[in-house]
Amino acid sequence: MLGGHGQFVADHAAGAHHVAFLRSSEPHAVITRIDTAVAARMPGVVGVFTAAGLGLCGVPIPSLTTPDPQFTAATSCVLAEQRLSILASDRVHYVGQPIAVVVAEDRYCAEDALEAIEIDYEALPAVTDPESALQPGSPVLFDHLDGNEAARLRYSFGDPERAFAAAAHVVAGTYRMNRHGAVPLECRGVLAHFDPRRQRVELTTSTQVPHMVRNAICAVTGWSRQDIKVSVPDVGGGFGTKANVYGEEILLAMLARRTGHRVIWVEDRQEHLVASAQGRDQIHRTRLALDAEGHIVAWADDFVVDIGAGSLWVAGIIANTAIHLLGPYRIPAADIAGRAALTNKTLVAQYRGAGRPEATFALERSLDAAAAALGLSSDEIRRRNLLTDADLPYARPIPYRDGVPISYDGRDYRACLESVLESLPRDEMTPCAATHPQYRIGYGLSCYLEATGRGPHETARIRLLPDGHFEVTAGAASAGQGHETVFAQVAAEALAVPMEQVCYVPGDTERLPDGVGTFASRSAILAGSAVHKAAHELVELATGRAARLAGADEADVQYTDGRFHVAAEHSVSWPELARAAALGGDQESGGALDVTAVYRVPTVTWTMGVHAVIVGVHRRTGIVKVLRYAVSHEGGREINPKIVEGQIIGGVAQGVGGALFEQWRYSASGQPQSTTFAAYHLPLSTDLPYVRVRHLHVDTPVNPIGVRGAGESGTIAVYSAVACAVDDAVGGGFHVDSTPISTGEVFRALEAS
Amino acid sequence: MLGGHGQFVADHAAGAHHVAFLRSSEPHAVITRIDTAVAARMPGVVGVFTAAGLGLCGVPIPSLTTPDPQFTAATSCVLAEQRLSILASDRVHYVGQPIAVVVAEDRYCAEDALEAIEIDYEALPAVTDPESALQPGSPVLFDHLDGNEAARLRYSFGDPERAFAAAAHVVAGTYRMNRHGAVPLECRGVLAHFDPRRQRVELTTSTQVPHMVRNAICAVTGWSRQDIKVSVPDVGGGFGTKANVYGEEILLAMLARRTGHRVIWVEDRQEHLVASAQGRDQIHRTRLALDAEGHIVAWADDFVVDIGAGSLWVAGIIANTAIHLLGPYRIPAADIAGRAALTNKTLVAQYRGAGRPEATFALERSLDAAAAALGLSSDEIRRRNLLTDADLPYARPIPYRDGVPISYDGRDYRACLESVLESLPRDEMTPCAATHPQYRIGYGLSCYLEATGRGPHETARIRLLPDGHFEVTAGAASAGQGHETVFAQVAAEALAVPMEQVCYVPGDTERLPDGVGTFASRSAILAGSAVHKAAHELVELATGRAARLAGADEADVQYTDGRFHVAAEHSVSWPELARAAALGGDQESGGALDVTAVYRVPTVTWTMGVHAVIVGVHRRTGIVKVLRYAVSHEGGREINPKIVEGQIIGGVAQGVGGALFEQWRYSASGQPQSTTFAAYHLPLSTDLPYVRVRHLHVDTPVNPIGVRGAGESGTIAVYSAVACAVDDAVGGGFHVDSTPISTGEVFRALEAS
Repeated sequence: MLGGHGQFVADHAAGAHHVAFLRSSEPHAVITRIDTAVAARMPGVVGVFTAAGLGLCGVPIPSLTTPDPQFTAATSCVLAEQRLSILASDRVHYVGQPIAVVVAEDRYCAEDALEAIEIDYEALPAVTDPESALQPGSPVLFDHLDGNEAARLRYSFGDPERAFAAAAHVVAGTYRMNRHGAVPLECRGVLAHFDPRRQRVELTTSTQVPHMVRNAICAVTGWSRQDIKVSVPDVGGGFGTKANVYGEEILLAMLARRTGHRVIWVEDRQEHLVASAQGRDQIHRTRLALDAEGHIVAWADDFVVDIGAGSLWVAGIIANTAIHLLGPYRIPAADIAGRAALTNKTLVAQYRGAGRPEATFALERSLDAAAAALGLSSDEIRRRNLLTDADLPYARPIPYRDGVPISYDGRDYRACLESVLESLPRDEMTPCAATHPQYRIGYGLSCYLEATGRGPHETARIRLLPDGHFEVTAGAASAGQGHETVFAQVAAEALAVPMEQVCYVPGDTERLPDGVGTFASRSAILAGSAVHKAAHELVELATGRAARLAGADEADVQYTDGRFHVAAEHSVSWPELARAAALGGDQESGGALDVTAVYRVPTVTWTMGVHAVIVGVHRRTGIVKVLRYAVSHEGGREINPKIVEGQIIGGVAQGVGGALFEQWRYSASGQPQSTTFAAYHLPLSTDLPYVRVRHLHVDTPVNPIGVRGAGESGTIAVYSAVACAVDDAVGGGFHVDSTPISTGEVFRALEAS
Repeated sequence: MLGGHGQFVADHAAGAHHVAFLRSSEPHAVITRIDTAVAARMPGVVGVFTAAGLGLCGVPIPSLTTPDPQFTAATSCVLAEQRLSILASDRVHYVGQPIAVVVAEDRYCAEDALEAIEIDYEALPAVTDPESALQPGSPVLFDHLDGNEAARLRYSFGDPERAFAAAAHVVAGTYRMNRHGAVPLECRGVLAHFDPRRQRVELTTSTQVPHMVRNAICAVTGWSRQDIKVSVPDVGGGFGTKANVYGEEILLAMLARRTGHRVIWVEDRQEHLVASAQGRDQIHRTRLALDAEGHIVAWADDFVVDIGAGSLWVAGIIANTAIHLLGPYRIPAADIAGRAALTNKTLVAQYRGAGRPEATFALERSLDAAAAALGLSSDEIRRRNLLTDADLPYARPIPYRDGVPISYDGRDYRACLESVLESLPRDEMTPCAATHPQYRIGYGLSCYLEATGRGPHETARIRLLPDGHFEVTAGAASAGQGHETVFAQVAAEALAVPMEQVCYVPGDTERLPDGVGTFASRSAILAGSAVHKAAHELVELATGRAARLAGADEADVQYTDGRFHVAAEHSVSWPELARAAALGGDQESGGALDVTAVYRVPTVTWTMGVHAVIVGVHRRTGIVKVLRYAVSHEGGREINPKIVEGQIIGGVAQGVGGALFEQWRYSASGQPQSTTFAAYHLPLSTDLPYVRVRHLHVDTPVNPIGVRGAGESGTIAVYSAVACAVDDAVGGGFHVDSTPISTGEVFRALEAS
C-alpha cells in the first residue's frame, strides 16, 4: 500500500545522540599514534572510542559464508580467512575504513570532534590492481596470509583442451567490468538504544539481513540472542550493499549499551561512496571455441575479482560468477577458473546480480566476437546455441552452491529470444535513425540465465488477531520491494480471505528469532513459500479448533472460502475462532492461533531472459543513448505483476548506469576519486526509454507458489546488450570490452571510421 | 532490580508535537461560544480541536463498572447513567474540565494558543455540598437525570431497630473525610503516534489499566482492537488516580491518527490538582448500639459520597464503603445505606483504600465514642468485639461484589490487636512525653479489615527464550510496585529456576490482548497467580516435548529442580528444549513454548490489621505530630517482604497526609482553592516516624500462591488511629470527627481545657 508514510532512518533522530566515524585517509598504512584526548574534551562530546577502548583490537567483522562442501569439492574452492577489523587499530587497509568513533550531543559536535582526533600514519605501498595483487612479490595486505588471494576455484567438464585444439574458430578476449554498485537513495543508517527493562539493546538498521546482523553482534560481543533485538525500518533501497554486515552496526550496538544513550548514525553521501560495500570489479580472460556452423564446442574463462580490503560474500560472488558463466547455452566442454584478490580499496559485497552480470558480460561479449568472426548476426549465433524445449530440463555436470546438481528448469530459451525479437524488431532501427539523425543507430542483444531463490530456508509467522484478521511476518526484510503487498497477497490467497484482512508487518529478531534475509532474488520464493506454508499450518491448527467448537470430528471439517465447513449448513469463521480463543471464550486455554513456519527450498529455480536494445551513438561526441529497450523472460507465477515489472525496469535502469556511467575510480596510489555524485555518475530518468516487458509464464516445481525470482534479472544482461548495440552502431569491428563503456574510445573509433 | 534507568513520560518527548488542553474556568456554566480561529492561526500551532471538530459532541467517557447482579440485588443498588463528556461542548461541570485541545510544535506554542481561544460562558448555580445536592430543589447537573444522585444502595441484617431500642448504650456521630487523593510524584502523561505500517495508533500512557484504556478508545472511536496498542511506560506512582480512564487518553489516540504526528501530553502539577481524579469526600451519619459490657449489638450508617462531576468507579466506591463498614467485629445487626452525589467538582476515582478508610473512620470513631461513654480504653472496647479464632472463618449475611457470600478467612483478629499492643506498648508514652515536653502525648488504635485481590481474573504469559531463559508478562500494569521483581520471583519459584533466568517485561495490549489492571490490592494475588499458573502450564506443555526429545513416555517424565527427568541418569534442560524448538532443531515445527494463562479467583481474601500510634499535640499551637507508629497485620505469604513492608510504610505515609494535611478545598461557588502545593499540603518525610511492621503470616486458601493483598492496607486505619490518639492527647472529651484534623479545633480545645 502506497501511503506516503515512509520514513528515513534520519527521521528517527529526535532525542538521540549522534555517532560519527573517523575514517582512514590512507589506503594502506601503519597507524603509529591515535590521540583522542582533545576531541574527548570538546563540548557536547559524550565519548571518543577506539578499538583499544572498546576491546576490539584485531577483532574482525565476523564471516557470513559457509560454502557447501559438495560445491567446494567439485570446484576445488579454497577460501582464505578474512580479518578486516571492525575498527582499525594498528593498520589501515582502505580509505574510508573506520578507526575511531565519536558519540556527541549532535552531529555538528561529532563532526568537529572527528577533526580534533590526532592520528599519525606510516604509509605502506598500496595494492590497487587485482591481477598484480595476486603476483608473487606484491605487497601483502594482511600478515596472517601469504599473499592477497582471498578465494579461488576451478572446475571443468567435457574435454576442453581437445575441443579447443579441434575447433573451427576460437575467439579470445579480455573483459573488464569496472567497480560500481548499489548507491541506494538512502544511505545506511543505524539507531540503537539500551532498554533497561529488558536489559537488551534494540537496534534498528537499514539492513537486508537483520538476523545476520544480530548473529554478528552476538559473535563479537558475546551477548546472547536475548541481549539484542534487531529491527528493520523503512529502507530506501538496498540492492545488495545492505545485505552486508557492517562494523558500524556492531559498534552502534556496543555504544548504546556502553553510553546508555540512544545513539544514531546516518551515513552521509560522501561517506557512503567510500564506506559502503561496492560491487563488480572483475577481469575475465576468455576463450570461446566454435564449430564451423557457430555451435559452441568449448569455453574457458580465467577471472579475477577485486574484492578490495575484504568481502564477507567472497565465496558467493566467486561461485555465482563461475556458475553463471555457462549461460543458457549448450556448452559441451568448459574450463572455468576464478580468483578473488585483496586490494587497498573499499570492501566489496554482492550488488544486484552479484557475479551474474560480470559472467554474462564475458560470455555474451565472446559470443558477439564469435558472431563477428563467423559473419553471423547477434540473434543467429544465439539461436544456434540456446537450449530449447528439446534440451530442457538441462543438467550441468556441477553442483549448485546448495550441493544439488544443477538442472535448468525452463521451457524453451530459444522461444524467449524469438519473443524479444518480436517485441523489439530490428526494423525499429529505421524510425530511430529518422528521429535521431545525429546518432548512429545500433541493435544489441543479450541472453541471461539466473539461479534464483537461494536457500537454505526462510521463516514466516502468521497469527490470528482478536477480530479475525491476520498478521503476517517473514524473516526476509524489505528494502522497498513491496513485501507488505506481496506477502499479504500470498497469505490472503493461501487463507482464501480478502487481502484487507491481512496485515504484513516487518519481521524483527524478536518476532521471528530465525531468518535469513533479502538478497539473491530469494524473497518472493523463500519468504513467500514460508508465508504460504505458515498459512496452511495455521489452517490445519485451526481446523481442529473449529471441529471442537462445532462438536464435529476433525476429519469432517473442510476449509474452503475462508471458513471451516462442518456440514452443508454449518460453518465456523475465523472471527468465531478468535473469540473462542480470547479470554472468556470456549477455547481460552487452547493457546494462540499463531504459527511460525520454516520453508526449506531443495535448490534454486532458474529465470532465463533475453534483452534487446537499440542505442544511438552520437556522431560528434561518441555519447551513447539508449533509445529502445525490451525484456522477455521466462518467469514463474507473478504474485504481483506490477512489482515484477517494476523490478525488471529498475534493474534495467541500474544496468544502464553500470554499462554507461557508473564507476568508482581509484588513483594508482589507492585514493578514491569518486567521492561525490559529480564524479560518480548515476543515470538520470532521461537516460532510460520505456522498457517493454514480456513475461513468459513457466511454472516451476521447486516451490509451492510457483514463483521464479526476478529481483536481479533486470540488471544482468544490460551491460552486454548495450555493448552489443554499441558495436553495431559504431561498426568497423569495434568491440566493447569493458564497462562503463568509454565515450573516449567510442569517439576515437568514430573518428577512425 | 533498581537500575536507575527509570524514565518519566516527559523523557520521551523528543520528536513529538505537544498537546495542551483548554480547561473550564467555571464550575457550572453553559458554553455560549467557542472561537478557536485566532489560536489555530498562531505560528507553531498544528491544530485546535473542539468536541464539534472531533465528532465528540455529547460523547461521554465510557463507563467501566458492571456490578455483580447478586450484590446489586442484595443491596438494592441503583446506578444512574453518567454522561461526563470527553470534551465539553455545551455545558461545563467543573473547573478543569477539558473543552478544547491544541496540538503544536512545542509546549510553549500550545500554551500560548490556549490563551487565544475565546470562550463565553453563561454561569449556572454551582452545586458544591453533596447532601444539599441530593435534596429536592437542588440545581441538577445533568439534563438526563432527575436529580444529582449517581448511585444508592442499602442493606441490613439482624434486627437493628429492635437492637437499637433495647441497647444499653447508643452513640451517634457525623464523620466526614474530606476530599484528598493520590497526587503521585509523576503527574499523568500520554504519548501517541500512528504507525502507518500496522495502520494503528500506539499509545503509551501512565495508566494502571491499559486494557480498560484500550477498550474505552475502541468504544468511543469504533476502532477494532487491532487499531490501537496501549503500552505502559515507567509510571511514577498511581494509587488509584491512574486506575481511571481519562478523556485525555482517548483524545491523544484520536489526535495521533488525525494529525499523523507523534503527540505527547504531560500533565503539569497545577493541571493535575484540578484534572486528575480525586478521592474520599464522604459524610457518614452513624449510630452504634452496645450492651452494658461494650459489646456491639447494632450498627447503622447513612453515608453520602461526593463524586464531583462523575466517577467511573462510583459503584466500586459505594460498595467498598458499605462492605467495609462492618470491620473485623462481631456485629449482629446492621443497617447500612449509602448514596453518591454529583457536584460541580473534579471527578472522583478510587484512591488507595477506595471507601475502606472512610468506612473504617466512621466505625472506629464510633467505637471510640462508645469507649468514652462506657469508660473503656481504646484497646478494651476492641478486644471485646474483635473476631477470634473461635469465630473465624466468619460469614456475613451479604454477598461480596463478585456475588460470593462474604466469609472472613483470617485466623484471630484479637491476637493481632495484642500483637500491636506488644509492638507499641502504651508505656512508650512516658519516654515520648519526656523527650517532647512541648507536646501533650496521646495513644491511638484502629483496626481494619480489607477485602483484597478482587477478580474476576488476570492474565499472564511466559515464553521460553532461545537461550533457555524466560520472559514473563502480566496484564496488571506496574505503577512502581516492583512487578519486575515480584512476578519474576513467582515465575522463578514455580519453574524452579534461578531468578536470573527470568525477565519480567511490562505487558501491553498486543503482548497480552486481555488483562484487567492494578488496583484493589489485587496485583500480587491475581497477576501473581496467573504467572504461577502460566509457569505450570508451560511446564506441562514442555514435559511432552521433553518426553519426545528423550524418546520416553510423557508419564515417565518428572519435572524437578528446573529439569525434566526421564530416568535416574537422564534429564532434559530448558536450553535443550529451546534449541530443539529453534530453527533446525528436532521440534522446529512444534510451535513456540509460549503460554498465556488466565487466572480466575473465586472471591476476595481478607487482610486484617491493627494500627497503633503515639502522637504529640503541640501545647501552644495544636499542631499534631506523629511520634511512634506500629502496624500488625494478618498477611498471607510474603513473596518479597521488602516490597510488602514498603507498601505498608508508604500507605501509612499517605494516611498521615490525609489525616493531618491534605485537602482539596472548594469555595462555595465551586472554585478549587488547592491548585498548588502551597495550598494542598503533602506530608514531608519528617512528618513520619519509623513504622514498626509485624507480619502475622496466615495462609489463605483462595489463591495458589497463598498471598493476601497489602497494597492499600497501610493507609486504611491511619485516619482513625491518629484521631483516636489526638482525642487521647487533648482529653476532656475532645472527639475528632473529620479529616484532615483541624489544627484550629485542636487549638481551641486545648485553650478550653
